[in-house]
Amino acid sequence: MQFLDFSKLTAVGKLQDYAESPCDLTAPDLLSSRRFSKYHLSSCGFDLLYATQRLDDSVLTALQELADEAELVEKFLAMKRGAVMNRIEGFPSEERQVLHTSSRDVFRENPDHPSSARQAKKQLARLHAFLQDLESGRIVNQAGEPFTTMIQVGIGGSDLGPRALCLALTAYGRSGHSVGFISNVDPDDAAQVLAGVDLSRTLVNVVSKSGTTLETVTNERLVREAFVRNELDPARHIIAVTGKGSPMDDPARYLATFHMYDYIGGRYSATSMVGMVTLGFLLGYDRALEILSGAHAVDRAAEEKNIRKNMPLLMAMIGIWNHNFLGFPTLAVLPYSQALVRFPAHLQQCDMESNGKSVTRLGGLVRWQTGPVVWGEPGTNGQHAFYQLLHQGTEIVPAEFIGFRRCQYGRDFTVKGTTSQQKLVANMLAQSLALAQGRPHENPNKYFPGNRPNSILLADQLTPYTMGTLLALYEHRIVFQGLCWNINSFDQEGVQLGKALANRLLAELSGDGTGEQGLPENSPEKSLLRLANPPK
Amino acid sequence: MQFLDFSKLTAVGKLQDYAESPCDLTAPDLLSSRRFSKYHLSSCGFDLLYATQRLDDSVLTALQELADEAELVEKFLAMKRGAVMNRIEGFPSEERQVLHTSSRDVFRENPDHPSSARQAKKQLARLHAFLQDLESGRIVNQAGEPFTTMIQVGIGGSDLGPRALCLALTAYGRSGHSVGFISNVDPDDAAQVLAGVDLSRTLVNVVSKSGTTLETVTNERLVREAFVRNELDPARHIIAVTGKGSPMDDPARYLATFHMYDYIGGRYSATSMVGMVTLGFLLGYDRALEILSGAHAVDRAAEEKNIRKNMPLLMAMIGIWNHNFLGFPTLAVLPYSQALVRFPAHLQQCDMESNGKSVTRLGGLVRWQTGPVVWGEPGTNGQHAFYQLLHQGTEIVPAEFIGFRRCQYGRDFTVKGTTSQQKLVANMLAQSLALAQGRPHENPNKYFPGNRPNSILLADQLTPYTMGTLLALYEHRIVFQGLCWNINSFDQEGVQLGKALANRLLAELSGDGTGEQGLPENSPEKSLLRLANPPK
Repeated sequence: MQFLDFSKLTAVGKLQDYAESPCDLTAPDLLSSRRFSKYHLSSCGFDLLYATQRLDDSVLTALQELADEAELVEKFLAMKRGAVMNRIEGFPSEERQVLHTSSRDVFRENPDHPSSARQAKKQLARLHAFLQDLESGRIVNQAGEPFTTMIQVGIGGSDLGPRALCLALTAYGRSGHSVGFISNVDPDDAAQVLAGVDLSRTLVNVVSKSGTTLETVTNERLVREAFVRNELDPARHIIAVTGKGSPMDDPARYLATFHMYDYIGGRYSATSMVGMVTLGFLLGYDRALEILSGAHAVDRAAEEKNIRKNMPLLMAMIGIWNHNFLGFPTLAVLPYSQALVRFPAHLQQCDMESNGKSVTRLGGLVRWQTGPVVWGEPGTNGQHAFYQLLHQGTEIVPAEFIGFRRCQYGRDFTVKGTTSQQKLVANMLAQSLALAQGRPHENPNKYFPGNRPNSILLADQLTPYTMGTLLALYEHRIVFQGLCWNINSFDQEGVQLGKALANRLLAELSGDGTGEQGLPENSPEKSLLRLANPPK
Repeated sequence: MQFLDFSKLTAVGKLQDYAESPCDLTAPDLLSSRRFSKYHLSSCGFDLLYATQRLDDSVLTALQELADEAELVEKFLAMKRGAVMNRIEGFPSEERQVLHTSSRDVFRENPDHPSSARQAKKQLARLHAFLQDLESGRIVNQAGEPFTTMIQVGIGGSDLGPRALCLALTAYGRSGHSVGFISNVDPDDAAQVLAGVDLSRTLVNVVSKSGTTLETVTNERLVREAFVRNELDPARHIIAVTGKGSPMDDPARYLATFHMYDYIGGRYSATSMVGMVTLGFLLGYDRALEILSGAHAVDRAAEEKNIRKNMPLLMAMIGIWNHNFLGFPTLAVLPYSQALVRFPAHLQQCDMESNGKSVTRLGGLVRWQTGPVVWGEPGTNGQHAFYQLLHQGTEIVPAEFIGFRRCQYGRDFTVKGTTSQQKLVANMLAQSLALAQGRPHENPNKYFPGNRPNSILLADQLTPYTMGTLLALYEHRIVFQGLCWNINSFDQEGVQLGKALANRLLAELSGDGTGEQGLPENSPEKSLLRLANPPK
């Protein structure tokens, strides 16, 4: 494998040329039936409609060359097979394998990376047994009653992915089982979540790979106190998901412990025990397994080298076209499904923490744009909020719509000849067209410039399987982009400075910062503390 | 009043010059104690710390000239006093007054705009009586029990602001009173919310100014069906907030009706009956009134012409400096308070729907950037998600931190010498400093470029009063910016094209689109429908 700078790839020059006069979506008859059919890909239960992107066959051919030249699929395969992809050449770095795909490579005899797949299977078997014990009544609370609620305590990757997936799949939740989440160090977060549950029937699932995450350790202490205050034994209510050998890997303190491994980064860990324990509690084991099945299907489909047949690779290359060549700094992800309300927040972490980087794999500073700002909210809600700017603002925002033909609960209702689900899907399709086509008008305030690139991802229904598919589509899109930009998408050194400064301020607040170790009176930290006057 | 193009203001040229070599926050000793004290403003219970913005006295002086030249405060005063500010000169437009400030101008004898303030007072008195009837048991359900839950059905401005405020103030909710929201036309949204409540003790508050909003009308029908299916009389459970004379203004169908007026735009309506009915139910009348009191304080403080003393005006001008002169396309709003989890979503509407425009008040196309993309999530959660990109990404994102010295519930806990609230505030201060200062490092992957502009808004506690203050600070920041860009911040023509196209697709789906009225076979709409194959 060769790691080449993005700017040195020959396809980059071609794409820069094409970007001088890209396809104009408002040109008469451009959005033909033929174009819609041609720029359409079906894979793993999803349709990707990308006729409303500002590209043509020449651009797609150059993007294919870019993908080939950067050896994206080869590197993806190497990643799945255990190459040490989390590293920076010539500098101290994490030096880890990147094996989140192994957490769902549990359905075949010859997995890509046998030893990690074995570990995944072992953890799944332990989870299965634990869930059976809960169901059969072998594990109950002190009063002999079954547990009804699981609260996951975690932050970042130990929160966003699992939370997004639980919210997405609440409709499939087993009767009498609910889940909640505590993440923020803000004490009001825990106070509010705990106020809404019957603690005596609640399991708390504390998730931290290192076992030392400030917020999670603090919230675990807070939860333990709450159990004790209610005369409940924390060791009968708290389970842990943590790295082997971490300070949290202590069976005496937990009702059960599941393991996560350092070859799976937090933001890619939703399909490991980090997400599966709470999802298993909510959905039951078999349904939770369907998530893995959907994700695994994409893991395999992503091995295809033809970008027109590889959905996450095509999404990645279109994103690079919009970001690096057409120059759009952000990306809106707009699910037309209320259940996906927190999926954009998960993507914010997965994408921006992976690709918000400025250093190449060889330790040089990048001289090209890396990851965009990713944001979004569900439609149709967004239509009544920020879509004004998408249609008529001066910032151009590429959009990715996500929709489903059928609703989850099946409780639909016909008003004026169409169901709510039909209205939902029709609105999504209409927005895609409106952004692309625009509309001339003699009143400048009713004029829509159009030519705003977007695509649509569409599946039949949001189920555990398609949720797994969707998750993996975005994970791989992000990985392919990071590989193309020649950055390490798997570390997060950018979070360290804030932590270090916070610790300095906290040492000052707790009184440890006095004397020789204390901060100078005229330091920015002291100045800020004086003005902010935080609680003593 | 004169409406001048932004590009013709003489201060704009000066600011362009300054932007060629703006203040470098990483310069040695720049972040001095003196700078922190100087770039600090206290107003209405909030401190604004802006020493970590890339500006100096010259820039502030030029921003003052810009504000003066564009007559921002004069126009704001005219708005409050009833000028027809929602218009485009020379073209058909909404031609409305903009009087959201009147909804809280209910505390003094001589309000800025007497007749609308009178209407606000009248609606408040009716709300007060209604809440008293609920409390005294004069209004009960069919079984004679009090109502425990209010579900607000609305979308956009009838949802985001009220929802953000209810979530922010849940800690102050009256015991035995809870609220919920249904907004999306996605039928799963209603199904999920209704599944979680006891319908017999639920009031549904349907909010739509026009009384014809597709999503809201559909969801009202769905809710009525649910009541009937449960043998409950909808007329005893459903109340309405709507414009006088709208199709929803029909007392026979509702237990109670409150009015909203066309001089208050949806995204500015949280302090009108649109928000106050549900907030009043949750908090009780007196506490809900404190929100208005906080907002009103800002309405008056915003009359100050000196930008260094007028907090929303200063926030507006700093935003323009970052967006138009330093060229940053987005703005992150980062509350260090889990209760403010949906406040950024409210701001997305309020800001992006107001200022995502391309036409001046005189009907010309703008030749400068208008509103930025606004996004954000609460800290410390965001630190474990997208902050990597904020610190080390290639996109520079100006950030506005919002924090509070005390938590809401008072259930705090000391771990390692500091409380959770101290950790929360210390992390916010640390992030502000880290973004500004950066850090040199021999390992390029541990290097932080810094010089990333941000400010901090800080108050003692998130209460109904400070929530009102915060809401109005942002409302006026947005209005001041729109006035400076010489655009109409009060219409939303950009939502119309999508609606029109959706109706065409729905006519096709409902079978109304056949025959002569139908869409041509080779139209983009038909092509898209064929591929998407939405539910029949």
